[in-house]
Amino acid sequence: MVAAVAANCVIGVDIGGTKMLVGVVDESLGVLHRIQQPTADADTNELLDRLASMVDEAVEAAPGEVLGVGFGVAGILDAKAGMIAAAPHLPLVGVPFEALMGERLGVPVAVDNDGNTSMLAEWLHGAAKGVSDAVMLTVGTGIGGGIVANGGLVRGSSGGGAEFGHMVIEQDGEQCSCGGHGHFEWYASGDAIGRAGERLAGRNPASALAAAAVEGREVTGALVTELAHDGDAASIEAIVEVGKRLGQGMVSITNIFNPELIVVGGGAIAAGDLLLGPAREIVEREALASLGANVSIVPAEFGADAGVIGAAVLAFEQMAQA
Amino acid sequence: MVAAVAANCVIGVDIGGTKMLVGVVDESLGVLHRIQQPTADADTNELLDRLASMVDEAVEAAPGEVLGVGFGVAGILDAKAGMIAAAPHLPLVGVPFEALMGERLGVPVAVDNDGNTSMLAEWLHGAAKGVSDAVMLTVGTGIGGGIVANGGLVRGSSGGGAEFGHMVIEQDGEQCSCGGHGHFEWYASGDAIGRAGERLAGRNPASALAAAAVEGREVTGALVTELAHDGDAASIEAIVEVGKRLGQGMVSITNIFNPELIVVGGGAIAAGDLLLGPAREIVEREALASLGANVSIVPAEFGADAGVIGAAVLAFEQMAQA
Repeated sequence: MVAAVAANCVIGVDIGGTKMLVGVVDESLGVLHRIQQPTADADTNELLDRLASMVDEAVEAAPGEVLGVGFGVAGILDAKAGMIAAAPHLPLVGVPFEALMGERLGVPVAVDNDGNTSMLAEWLHGAAKGVSDAVMLTVGTGIGGGIVANGGLVRGSSGGGAEFGHMVIEQDGEQCSCGGHGHFEWYASGDAIGRAGERLAGRNPASALAAAAVEGREVTGALVTELAHDGDAASIEAIVEVGKRLGQGMVSITNIFNPELIVVGGGAIAAGDLLLGPAREIVEREALASLGANVSIVPAEFGADAGVIGAAVLAFEQMAQA
Repeated sequence: MVAAVAANCVIGVDIGGTKMLVGVVDESLGVLHRIQQPTADADTNELLDRLASMVDEAVEAAPGEVLGVGFGVAGILDAKAGMIAAAPHLPLVGVPFEALMGERLGVPVAVDNDGNTSMLAEWLHGAAKGVSDAVMLTVGTGIGGGIVANGGLVRGSSGGGAEFGHMVIEQDGEQCSCGGHGHFEWYASGDAIGRAGERLAGRNPASALAAAAVEGREVTGALVTELAHDGDAASIEAIVEVGKRLGQGMVSITNIFNPELIVVGGGAIAAGDLLLGPAREIVEREALASLGANVSIVPAEFGADAGVIGAAVLAFEQMAQA
């Protein structure tokens, strides 16, 4: 039994702006071994070296042969140029990542945007299994995502899709970290929950949220979510507000894609139906009736390990096609 | 030579809110014969009868055998239920259109949304020929559209995509004809050009636009476009304003789809680069750099006959797959 499981492993690597997470993943998508390191302060070569040594360590820890390595990167790929075109928090812009990591590791390597790997994992093995038209939103610091249409992952002409966080939902609105204006992730991300929480703490001095702020705790999306689950009205209001904004973006997604499913992952999904409830109400009220009636809005199945598992699924897929 | 052309014809039918246009179309997409009738004031059966007799007339006028009939409908299809789910200006909601027309005509029938048929025609034979990832916007009274991704037309889970006109680009914005709020077509359609023109005529009493309004001419998108081409500054300003709004929607499209091409058709494209120039500037400035650099914004190749030709291309496609 152990031998059978051990026969097919891959390494999944989740490269985020603050940390890198490497996992040994078997075919049933169990994560057998985890290695984590901070991303911060590394230059390009250091980062690549650190990744290579983490992967080597994972390969040694694997209970059998490692078939390949998948990377999910918090950045925009340019598949045509074979490099990472944009990555706000990583020293990887302009880097031919797949080629360089392949050289360093000497095993087959697959690379994609982390929104796409999350969509792939949910579609092949999670909440969107068997669905031919679905959209994934990963709601965290920003908003990433992926698209399945006609039973295939949609990556765009140069592999740079699907940046749902950078949809315009407010003309001439607030400036986004990317330089654009009025983007979805400003209004509907985990960070947006934190910002709404700060504002509502100020307006509700008797709230648990205001008390936490006075104690010197940073008002983050995670804190607001925690206090909302404890019943704090101001915290709940902050999440409902952001849930409605999330719903407005989902109206666009519903009317454009006519998806069967919108899957919501990322850190903000810890708020559960406090966040998804208001989003569902907006879609029901504001989307084109015949399309809104055909869409379900559901939480992702893969939680904290979604990044590693998504990258592993990418590796399994690439090996299967090779 | 004539016999060879005559051997393969289809009938293309464009069903809009104000008129129905039927054409005999050969394989080189020449429109050999046209029949037009108003849509207005017909109930469902009258409309179906009128369509059937127009098609019969076209079949008789065709120089050879008619392989099939394609319909492009200004409405939202529900392919799963086999009916038209929504059609604001047509008595066809809930009607199993394909089945009923197939019965009446006794020839193979294909039905799709007119945005999808336009995309299909541009993709297989027009501005997007050979492109694997493209988006079409048909900018007229409203905004329709279509998507090609991974080298295939994306119609969504129930065939109701791709309603780009009903993307939210202004949270809590103006109410759309569909009941939703802040939708793209309110700000960036041909009708939006007319509305901007009315406002700017009021502010610029010395303009040709104001003079036309005083003469009692209705300030439509077409009038504004005509006067803009004649050099009227107020009319140009109206089109530039709407072109910028069009560009903001295209920022969303670029960031979501990473398309190689955005093709713009519909009546409003008569404004040409007066409209597309400002849209291109916004995309260049506001889209994610690596995605904005990879997209071209171009006018559709099929003009006034786009509806009939799109429906004909749909029919040819369906026959080829049958």
